[in-house]
Amino acid sequence: MLHFQTTPSRALLVTRFIQHSKRHNSFFPAEKLTKKDLNPRVLGAEYAVRGLIPNKAEELREKLRHNPDSLPFKEIINANIGNPQQLRQRPLTFYRSVLSILQNPKLLETYHDYPKDVVHRARVLLSKIGSLGAYSHSQGVQYIREQIAHFITKRDGGAISLPENIYLTGGASDGVKAVFEVILDGERTSGVMIPIPQYPLYTAAITLNNATPISYYLNEHDNWSTNPHEIEELVQTSNKFGIKPKILVVINPGNPTGSVLSKTAIEDILTIAAKRGLVIIADEVYQENIFEGKFHSFKSVLSDLQHKHAHLYDNVQLVSLHSTSKGVTGECGQRGGYMELVGFKPEIHEMFLKLASISLCSVVSGQALVEMMVNPPKKGDESYELDQKERTAIHETYKSKANALYEAFSKLENIEVQKPQGAMYLFPKIILSESIIAHAKDLGLKPDEFYCLELLGNTGICVVPGSGFGQVEGTFHVRTTFLPPGQEWIDKWAKFHKEFFLKFRGV
Amino acid sequence: MLHFQTTPSRALLVTRFIQHSKRHNSFFPAEKLTKKDLNPRVLGAEYAVRGLIPNKAEELREKLRHNPDSLPFKEIINANIGNPQQLRQRPLTFYRSVLSILQNPKLLETYHDYPKDVVHRARVLLSKIGSLGAYSHSQGVQYIREQIAHFITKRDGGAISLPENIYLTGGASDGVKAVFEVILDGERTSGVMIPIPQYPLYTAAITLNNATPISYYLNEHDNWSTNPHEIEELVQTSNKFGIKPKILVVINPGNPTGSVLSKTAIEDILTIAAKRGLVIIADEVYQENIFEGKFHSFKSVLSDLQHKHAHLYDNVQLVSLHSTSKGVTGECGQRGGYMELVGFKPEIHEMFLKLASISLCSVVSGQALVEMMVNPPKKGDESYELDQKERTAIHETYKSKANALYEAFSKLENIEVQKPQGAMYLFPKIILSESIIAHAKDLGLKPDEFYCLELLGNTGICVVPGSGFGQVEGTFHVRTTFLPPGQEWIDKWAKFHKEFFLKFRGV
Repeated sequence: MLHFQTTPSRALLVTRFIQHSKRHNSFFPAEKLTKKDLNPRVLGAEYAVRGLIPNKAEELREKLRHNPDSLPFKEIINANIGNPQQLRQRPLTFYRSVLSILQNPKLLETYHDYPKDVVHRARVLLSKIGSLGAYSHSQGVQYIREQIAHFITKRDGGAISLPENIYLTGGASDGVKAVFEVILDGERTSGVMIPIPQYPLYTAAITLNNATPISYYLNEHDNWSTNPHEIEELVQTSNKFGIKPKILVVINPGNPTGSVLSKTAIEDILTIAAKRGLVIIADEVYQENIFEGKFHSFKSVLSDLQHKHAHLYDNVQLVSLHSTSKGVTGECGQRGGYMELVGFKPEIHEMFLKLASISLCSVVSGQALVEMMVNPPKKGDESYELDQKERTAIHETYKSKANALYEAFSKLENIEVQKPQGAMYLFPKIILSESIIAHAKDLGLKPDEFYCLELLGNTGICVVPGSGFGQVEGTFHVRTTFLPPGQEWIDKWAKFHKEFFLKFRGV
Repeated sequence: MLHFQTTPSRALLVTRFIQHSKRHNSFFPAEKLTKKDLNPRVLGAEYAVRGLIPNKAEELREKLRHNPDSLPFKEIINANIGNPQQLRQRPLTFYRSVLSILQNPKLLETYHDYPKDVVHRARVLLSKIGSLGAYSHSQGVQYIREQIAHFITKRDGGAISLPENIYLTGGASDGVKAVFEVILDGERTSGVMIPIPQYPLYTAAITLNNATPISYYLNEHDNWSTNPHEIEELVQTSNKFGIKPKILVVINPGNPTGSVLSKTAIEDILTIAAKRGLVIIADEVYQENIFEGKFHSFKSVLSDLQHKHAHLYDNVQLVSLHSTSKGVTGECGQRGGYMELVGFKPEIHEMFLKLASISLCSVVSGQALVEMMVNPPKKGDESYELDQKERTAIHETYKSKANALYEAFSKLENIEVQKPQGAMYLFPKIILSESIIAHAKDLGLKPDEFYCLELLGNTGICVVPGSGFGQVEGTFHVRTTFLPPGQEWIDKWAKFHKEFFLKFRGV
């Protein structure tokens, strides 16, 4: 590369060089970026839900598209991701009717088949939002935040929620990323306590923020319960390693575990947070999907504790996440969600608002969907009956699908599974022999990856290896949604499972 | 706080401690988070478009709501942000008609007033997307990426664009954030070259990624043109300070400047990128808003250079951003956008895809809107005539509004303004006397902030001080959109401006 001295005529020389370059095409093109030039945080992040196995599934899907008879199955069954509408779950009629009017308000004048409450809701939302095409307040439309606050207050038996503590987000993931970005300081000394197994967004976001994950293990044989003693110990021990735990993540109902936490378990966690100054992220996106037991929100349990023990829990800082992607709403692609920030000082809110404002606002149609999720048709409304019917059907389907899968696994050998209580997943343990483990390693695969790849290659069923979520060393799991329709895929899996252990008995 | 020794019976002691705490409510609540515990990058980030002046405007709006006669004006006029539909711009009928069907496909059977091409487009999109409520491929729906690639190829006179290089994003801001997150490595030694004045998303995102901004100044008196010599010099000089420039940001048409770059200017920038290995971010979100001159995309100019000078420009790595928020589309709240990545190695794409997959996907209705933006009704389609009429009307309105504001400023003293060529903004220079500057400083304000606050307080017009965008030291500007309807606000501003200089002549 030509080189100039820094002299008074430098600008002139540079001009000449550029002119010269243009005339003679004489410059030396620089190297392109390679991985080593990139952000090591991004290089290090992992996200198994769309990792090795789902990518392999995409390849096979392409293969089937070009040659439908090339594989021992006709289609890929995506049980790797909680994406109900990809698997033929139909959206709720009320939501979509209102959204169609919000997109085209002219329907109010020209279309007369919508129920009165659909028309009324659309008019209210339009009057509060203006156009879906305008940026809203960065925190979300004020009216929608008020409706969310009402919903929370009612859900939690009167524990007051305030619209100024609500932030609309593009799904719950955006909420997690915002909390991490504000509270983690980019130093490895900042720790985030996560359950193992966990939803891999958390480990990915921890890596992207250069923080240290601190794993607390869920007790598989007690239906993936939490152990407060272990958490308390970890907090103390981490300090000795120079790590300061700042955030404690709880996923309830559990992903990937499908478990539901008891009130006592939540109290214990809140007590640790109060004592240790940990911010709690309560990932409560599956709160509508409960088959067994009862959902207790962290907010309601905290409120109870605050009433019982004056001042002792006033310091707790809680972020509760909810989303339109899961539950009976199941509108993943619409990217609606909210977070409630409880107990934070105003100066912390200021930072969340600033960060939100840099992103301008979350998608406004998603905000409207959140409003409908927290404020569905009520008894007496024209849409109520149909809406209830649709909700109940989805809920019943979830429950029966979850149980069908559970029953099937329960009958098999070399697999252990906990009874599903909520969410959309089962996380069965696959009991692999030493020889299968060694065989997988010979292939350069993790043992659970090997099982998942064999399952995919033989049946088209795509699930995610437990290693993407974390598991006790030496144990192997898979996460599967129970969403695919029908019994056939379950039977195929059961058949595969038996054959797998026969086939690899002797390796 | 109680303290335990690390002995074999530690677990037992911890258990006892928790039991004890519960019985006696005897723990010591920890301190809450304060600003000093937070991420210094978030603390340091600034975003003036929604900063001091807009926040003050919100306060005044509230005041007016409670007491409409409490201020010398009746309403706040938001000229601080390019948010057309907030200011009564009506969305294009074709877009919203199709979106209403995508939200409620039952309209296909029950509603018969839509033009044939609306119905057809909705059917095509539904067949390609499935449900708006399902997560799409993380990079965006394949079919939509193909349509975008067609659009780019056609726009750029045949320079091939490939769907695998297209990433759907939640508006252009998400694209910028992704590029910064992948390419910047969190070290202050990584530099990002930005124009001054710039759109403050860039400085905010630079701060959030802990990189160093390197300012290149646009030449105000040559209609905010770029100076390649200065850029070239800065690259060389920055190396001497231990800063490695990795990314060069160009905003064309310009925000906040309203200027449009010449083909030669773009060639010069691409030559620097080829020589120096800089990744170019071409922020081309205003490409539809051109009043004077011609829009040349960076992609088309790069392609020309690559044809003319075999291999010399093959190394150029370009990210081009587009969005549904601006142009005649103006659908800010729908959060649609895309970025095209040109010239990157596959290993870099891998990282972009991984990062996208952690966020699952951009909002699917926004993706559909992008498809319509790049593929509007064509001659012969039933919607064509109305669509053209609406587009032309918006375009003409923009042009006449821009000119009206320009004319008004041109007639005033103590203000200098460049003729608007594109985008949605004017960035006039306010010529403040030494005494006004001193007076502002006495009030603890930047001089341009003082002007903006006075403008807001007297007229309700909300604009952003130039200091939020960057300006030559000792000069003062404001950024204003020309979007507010009517002439009245312009006259009010002109009147205020004269009075301001009379009033503060003697301070």
